[in-house]
Amino acid sequence: MMGGMTETPHPMYDLHAKTLERALAAIADRGYWSAYPESPSPKVYGETAAADGRAAFDAYLGKDFPLDQPGTGDRVATESSPFGVDLNVAYPHADVDTLMAAARAGMPAWRDAGPDTRAGVCLEILDRLHKHVFELANAVHFTTGQAFVMAFQAGGPHALDRALEAVAYAYAEMTRHPAKAEWEKPAGKGDPLRMSKTFHVVPRGVALVVGCNTFPTWNSYPGLFASLVTGNPVIVKPHPRAVLPLAVTVRYAREVLAEAGFDPNLVLLAAEAPGEKLASVLATRPEVRIVDFTGSTEYGDWLEANARQAVVYTEKAGVNTIVVDSTDDFAGMLRNIGFSLTLYSGQMCTTPQNILVPAGGITTDEGHKSFDEVASGIAAAVGKLTGDPARAVELTGAIANDGVLRRLDEVKSVGEVVLDSRELDHPSYDKAIVRTPTVVKLPADAEGTYGSEWFGPISFVIATDSTDQSLEIFRKTVGAKGALTASVYSTDAGVLDEAEEAALEAGVHLSCNLTGGVFVNQSAAFSDFHASGANPAANASLTDGAYVAGRFRIVQSRRHV
Amino acid sequence: MMGGMTETPHPMYDLHAKTLERALAAIADRGYWSAYPESPSPKVYGETAAADGRAAFDAYLGKDFPLDQPGTGDRVATESSPFGVDLNVAYPHADVDTLMAAARAGMPAWRDAGPDTRAGVCLEILDRLHKHVFELANAVHFTTGQAFVMAFQAGGPHALDRALEAVAYAYAEMTRHPAKAEWEKPAGKGDPLRMSKTFHVVPRGVALVVGCNTFPTWNSYPGLFASLVTGNPVIVKPHPRAVLPLAVTVRYAREVLAEAGFDPNLVLLAAEAPGEKLASVLATRPEVRIVDFTGSTEYGDWLEANARQAVVYTEKAGVNTIVVDSTDDFAGMLRNIGFSLTLYSGQMCTTPQNILVPAGGITTDEGHKSFDEVASGIAAAVGKLTGDPARAVELTGAIANDGVLRRLDEVKSVGEVVLDSRELDHPSYDKAIVRTPTVVKLPADAEGTYGSEWFGPISFVIATDSTDQSLEIFRKTVGAKGALTASVYSTDAGVLDEAEEAALEAGVHLSCNLTGGVFVNQSAAFSDFHASGANPAANASLTDGAYVAGRFRIVQSRRHV
Repeated sequence: MMGGMTETPHPMYDLHAKTLERALAAIADRGYWSAYPESPSPKVYGETAAADGRAAFDAYLGKDFPLDQPGTGDRVATESSPFGVDLNVAYPHADVDTLMAAARAGMPAWRDAGPDTRAGVCLEILDRLHKHVFELANAVHFTTGQAFVMAFQAGGPHALDRALEAVAYAYAEMTRHPAKAEWEKPAGKGDPLRMSKTFHVVPRGVALVVGCNTFPTWNSYPGLFASLVTGNPVIVKPHPRAVLPLAVTVRYAREVLAEAGFDPNLVLLAAEAPGEKLASVLATRPEVRIVDFTGSTEYGDWLEANARQAVVYTEKAGVNTIVVDSTDDFAGMLRNIGFSLTLYSGQMCTTPQNILVPAGGITTDEGHKSFDEVASGIAAAVGKLTGDPARAVELTGAIANDGVLRRLDEVKSVGEVVLDSRELDHPSYDKAIVRTPTVVKLPADAEGTYGSEWFGPISFVIATDSTDQSLEIFRKTVGAKGALTASVYSTDAGVLDEAEEAALEAGVHLSCNLTGGVFVNQSAAFSDFHASGANPAANASLTDGAYVAGRFRIVQSRRHV
Repeated sequence: MMGGMTETPHPMYDLHAKTLERALAAIADRGYWSAYPESPSPKVYGETAAADGRAAFDAYLGKDFPLDQPGTGDRVATESSPFGVDLNVAYPHADVDTLMAAARAGMPAWRDAGPDTRAGVCLEILDRLHKHVFELANAVHFTTGQAFVMAFQAGGPHALDRALEAVAYAYAEMTRHPAKAEWEKPAGKGDPLRMSKTFHVVPRGVALVVGCNTFPTWNSYPGLFASLVTGNPVIVKPHPRAVLPLAVTVRYAREVLAEAGFDPNLVLLAAEAPGEKLASVLATRPEVRIVDFTGSTEYGDWLEANARQAVVYTEKAGVNTIVVDSTDDFAGMLRNIGFSLTLYSGQMCTTPQNILVPAGGITTDEGHKSFDEVASGIAAAVGKLTGDPARAVELTGAIANDGVLRRLDEVKSVGEVVLDSRELDHPSYDKAIVRTPTVVKLPADAEGTYGSEWFGPISFVIATDSTDQSLEIFRKTVGAKGALTASVYSTDAGVLDEAEEAALEAGVHLSCNLTGGVFVNQSAAFSDFHASGANPAANASLTDGAYVAGRFRIVQSRRHV
């Protein structure tokens, strides 16, 4: 059969059909669900899992990474761990023409395998990665500087959940109508017109995933798996400083593809030499028809403007904002904001930057609090979390790159510093670069400063005339520069409604009155959308229909019965 | 309530809920269904419907078109009927800033009304247009040159079906998960984390629909209604030669919007003065976030390259192809191809142009037929359909514009003419310009000629070495220039499979062995996809998920329960 859509699905489909079914239910109700346990506890993963994973990670260090993809034979090693650990893993340095030819060779069989088989194979890859989740977590931890538990959660189970979510959306889109339909049109007194129609899911072409430094798996998996499950071969171009997590991913993806009887070259690693600008070369190749990117606004905009032969999905930078109007839990608010600023030293694309507070202060359960009391309260909350270096580093992790250090230096002179960034000694890694968050006060008219992103542990507490002005600044800055997150604190239902209206206009997701164990910088797969595509910080959302529907096309054939 | 998604839907929703439900079922099974009867018979539409519609059409002629939208007070009249009938309808000539401001004013209320209400209002607009279907049919007939029955069917019921199909896809996309979800995450021994989440459907912004000369309603309705139902205001920029069908559409859309309590300026007409290039001005305005266009490849490519602030859906030109290998119904094949070439004098974007036939001839139920016998057989079939002018004009209609006449002249010298185009006298309209199709023989190496679109009643019968070469040419020309339709004639299952594989690679829908009452240039809403988005002739398809999913965004808010 052409297109193979009526063929028996691969046994991997049967193996994972229940998980897929549960994921399809989850994206339809968007309540709580997770397929991969987020606790690294031995009670969940077994007594030896952590040590085995660490050993598997250690075995990669200082060696040629085991990847049998076609290439030049050259190797590149570009990583340097923020914890100061020697990595020196050497990856195959591929030739672009070879990559393209290899990627395309397996396309027809992968296309003809149909949605069920492709979904089964993708879920088996996720399962295989989950079996190696501690190995993956160590790779994320040591390349990004994330503390281990965060690296495990965000880089492992949460990334796998986001991947599964994308697979579920893509599967739903590919199977929303049957692969074959009978069409019978009445024709007056004559015989009806009868046709049999076949609807083929046809991939667009080679998909390119450009990974980022800080969340190499979490931000790459949705695009990688959405493209793969819809029939496209995927070339993964990791950030030169965070190659290993994606090399491990590609390794196991290839292993599963081969086991399933498909060309392993449907997933390829494109590691680059320093200064090679490989992403730009790959993204503008005519064979490349899909690009997924996470990173700077500048480069995301370049891709959107120049990779015109492809559909381009970008997540870029923004100015995440908190509007503080009033609260019935002042301590909880400070604790929650403090934690959000401290987590991974503010190196999340979702970390709040601009905290808008009326200059006249706010009403709280602890009475009126002045603007300065709010600012110093936030500083104190951060201070408390980072007071003990041994505990602090398990939240902050290490600084991923020098750009963050430069900005920490530069920000000292732009306003009144409420909280200085401190260097901490990491108890386990003496070469690790650890910095605590800084908080700087700014006036409302300093938009030239707070109107752009300062990536890293840098936040501004901005004195506004009123909550109305806070909302106006929120609308304006997010409308102009985008944001991935926003939150509001208010005890006034009218203000919450106004903030929600402003969020709809600015096109940013809003969290209201977070004072407990949910933080604005965290989004839960299957329930929370990550990025909206409705403001300049991203042109896509994890995950909605728009994120998957353009990755394939329907081509139909029809003939009389 | 913010976003209004839990409000009671408007009564128009209840009125049309069953139709919407049936349409949702149709897009899920893609079998035969139609909501609007295609026969203009008085038995279906009533004894006076045709006369009433004609009278309503006549009442527009030579007058200011009744449209109360904000504007300059100036009027423009740019149409000239291919049948030579004086139209001279004067449309409001709007100022671009005024249009943009007017379009945006009604957005928040329309957004907050929610998917149910918007779908109900859109279905009421379709119902209202259906009540005026003869008025609409006359407007299409006299502006495009389509014969009346075709203008009625394609311009009326078929266009309405395509609109309803787009509304159904968009509604399904907006409502694939609930507007609110409760999220409860277990938290070990502590209380679970509980949040209530609201998912708002947020429109992108102003939508622009750029209409075409030949199918002003059929090609504009899907984009118009997909954008409107997802919450976007729509500015309709008709082709200067086919304004009336869209002016009538805008008139009744505004009437229904006002009746439903919404701002009628959510749908606006943007008629232009000659040479004004209004589409380019509108398409590049920052407020415009969606553009739908049908027309030339050149202008479609321009829009894709320049309307970068918008998502752009285009249907452009291509080289529609027939591969003739063999047939068990030679007469049926010739009749079917002949009809396809004659319908609306080949002025359909779906009319076949390149007919690839082995130079050595083909096997048929009537024995071996030489290449020349196939070519002259097609010519004879066209000749038979166009022999009697009174009957011919009911198929051919009139020539829509001078470009077609120029090409008919030019094509005479590019190859051996098998069938000359003839001028016919229209029995009812002495100024009508009527031309029958021409058929020209070309060698396989004349790709410089047949490799581009010759819009109008112009087809090439191309002599190839073999069906293998035919399929190679098919792949190559459609891959390079695109196509909206393709068909193959063969009695060999292997050849049909090879043709289907070639169609998948070229990304074009394929019809096999059409010898009866289904023609390659016709696609049925709810079952056939029109255009694939997988070749250069279009970047979108009527209708799939990708066509609707990008017209809105989800913006969520969450708060603790």
